Amino acid sequence: MEVLQILHMNKGNGETSYAQNSKVQEKILSIAKPIVDEAVQKLLCSNIAPIGSMGIADLGCSSGPNTFLLISEIIDAIRATRSSSSSFTEFRVFLNDLFSNDFNTIFMSLPAFYNQLKKEKGAGLGSFFVSATPGSFYGRLFPAKSLHFVHSSSSLHWLSQVPHGLDFQAAGKALNKGKIWISKTSPQCVLDAYSFQFHKDFSLFLKSRAEEIIGGGRMVLSLLGRSSSDPSTPERCYQWDLLAHALMTMVSEGLIEEEKVDSFNLPYYAPSEEELKLELEKEGSFIIDRLEAFEIDWDGGAETTVVASGQRVAKTIRAVVESMIESHFEKNIMDDLFRRYAELVADHLSKSRTKFLNLFCSVIRKD
Amino acid sequence: MEVLQILHMNKGNGETSYAQNSKVQEKILSIAKPIVDEAVQKLLCSNIAPIGSMGIADLGCSSGPNTFLLISEIIDAIRATRSSSSSFTEFRVFLNDLFSNDFNTIFMSLPAFYNQLKKEKGAGLGSFFVSATPGSFYGRLFPAKSLHFVHSSSSLHWLSQVPHGLDFQAAGKALNKGKIWISKTSPQCVLDAYSFQFHKDFSLFLKSRAEEIIGGGRMVLSLLGRSSSDPSTPERCYQWDLLAHALMTMVSEGLIEEEKVDSFNLPYYAPSEEELKLELEKEGSFIIDRLEAFEIDWDGGAETTVVASGQRVAKTIRAVVESMIESHFEKNIMDDLFRRYAELVADHLSKSRTKFLNLFCSVIRKD
Repeated sequence: MEVLQILHMNKGNGETSYAQNSKVQEKILSIAKPIVDEAVQKLLCSNIAPIGSMGIADLGCSSGPNTFLLISEIIDAIRATRSSSSSFTEFRVFLNDLFSNDFNTIFMSLPAFYNQLKKEKGAGLGSFFVSATPGSFYGRLFPAKSLHFVHSSSSLHWLSQVPHGLDFQAAGKALNKGKIWISKTSPQCVLDAYSFQFHKDFSLFLKSRAEEIIGGGRMVLSLLGRSSSDPSTPERCYQWDLLAHALMTMVSEGLIEEEKVDSFNLPYYAPSEEELKLELEKEGSFIIDRLEAFEIDWDGGAETTVVASGQRVAKTIRAVVESMIESHFEKNIMDDLFRRYAELVADHLSKSRTKFLNLFCSVIRKD
Repeated sequence: MEVLQILHMNKGNGETSYAQNSKVQEKILSIAKPIVDEAVQKLLCSNIAPIGSMGIADLGCSSGPNTFLLISEIIDAIRATRSSSSSFTEFRVFLNDLFSNDFNTIFMSLPAFYNQLKKEKGAGLGSFFVSATPGSFYGRLFPAKSLHFVHSSSSLHWLSQVPHGLDFQAAGKALNKGKIWISKTSPQCVLDAYSFQFHKDFSLFLKSRAEEIIGGGRMVLSLLGRSSSDPSTPERCYQWDLLAHALMTMVSEGLIEEEKVDSFNLPYYAPSEEELKLELEKEGSFIIDRLEAFEIDWDGGAETTVVASGQRVAKTIRAVVESMIESHFEKNIMDDLFRRYAELVADHLSKSRTKFLNLFCSVIRKD
């Protein structure tokens, strides 16, 4: 699977679109708001050398209402520190996501967003220049020392590729048989392959940002993580275990080939706080200001019954992974697959209120 | 008609897309190539103060193979002057068009373009960072003094709006009856309204670019123009006169309401060389280095029979104006309208080989 070409949140504004099904990601943004506020305010109050205008990048911006939330938040933070900061009067905002992200839908919403900004936030804030920079954040995206603030939410748990070797068959048997991510039944080499890929990707991410961010600049990252050091801890696998289960029920009914499931693995990794800290320290360009973890309901806490929760979770996950499943399986399995998944999730939640763990991390680029 | 929200070249890669029907615009780019080359080379050899990386903007980039042509040309020009210029190692390329332009299709082609660049042009050229900045070039798009080279081709003849007052009815009769642009039958006030709108738009364009381009920076503009000082010179109206004629044949058959044609006017203007020169001198921020005019066949010189030429012209014009016609009339008239138009164009070309006049202008930002 060519992740960098394929992976995108579901496009447009329809029923299965990411724009309509990103409440959990919105919840995560709202939890991160005070962390973003603090980082922007500290940045504006520091003696950072201005380079003409303030450079801001949102990495993995996707397409939907969440895309504009960050810009709004940053504007609020700038207003709050307005009296003490005056060196920036122009703000360059770069929205980044992979090449197949639905930037057209973002751009169509921009005129309304600009109008709303003018009305709600008032004049005298300075000028905002919004651009899109498509490409993988596992590599350089921006000129050297051109950014002051970098943000990434609900994106860094996606790897640049499915780890090599997972489609290897030992004695005719697939390595990660019947599963689509690390699971209790996965052999150690599957865990190792995922952990190595995360290390490789995240260190390249940090190295690239270290070149782009000016000394004293800041970065706030949030991504799904895990509390235990063991990646196969059940509570961190359940969402993918249940999706694998739904796929396997379709295998048992002859709707999908078993080999197709065996050879499908998600380019995903949820690191522990310790793992994140180690990578940051090893790369060495950033000082950790804050590193925290919060639990979030699978449905973002929006639903009152397990059935509704199951449906909400299925819609959320579908909006995120459909592009990858579609490229490996077939388009026409989607409704059936996610109906089964919604039922399995509802059943699971009726027994155990499993939650996501989200890591939030605020760092400063060393001078 | 909200031009800034509606106007876009036909999206995607299909039969009626701009990507498949932009040979004339490609021809214009190829005529402009030596002018662009010269401007980039002079820029790189000048003592312009570097601001970290070189800022390049293509205004009205549209979506199709032409979008990447300019970047390729600039890279060629940089290679040609490589030995004498070494202060730039990073290039920020900003692609601009209106909010509804099909940026998704451009972005999907970017990975292949990056690969081709690596293969054809070799390493050691420096890094290219391609972004998209949607919005109207009749206003600020970029931070102050952030650009070194600005380019715009086949875009500036589109106005920011249909001139005010054209839908005014005098004694129950539409001002520009049966026409969609300036024509021999248009009253003087229609000519004046168009000429005033061009003056207003183009001076705002220059003022905005003057703020964004660093002293010594350069700009190459190309747009459709006219040779005579009279905007209603027949040869410069024919393409729109014939389209109005096609619409009126549909009125006579009861397929379109006459009132709909009377109230439709194109946000278009083709200035004379003298007019362009006057506006540049009046605004005062730029020195004119070159100002030239070239004639171009309506079909880009690609066809050998008038029937084929008629079809080619109809496809070219359709790819450009469909978004505006669709928003005013109805979507289902399009095939019929452009079939009629192709026939009228073929008939016209069998009697007179009318050509477009294209203006090319290379200017330098004063220090």
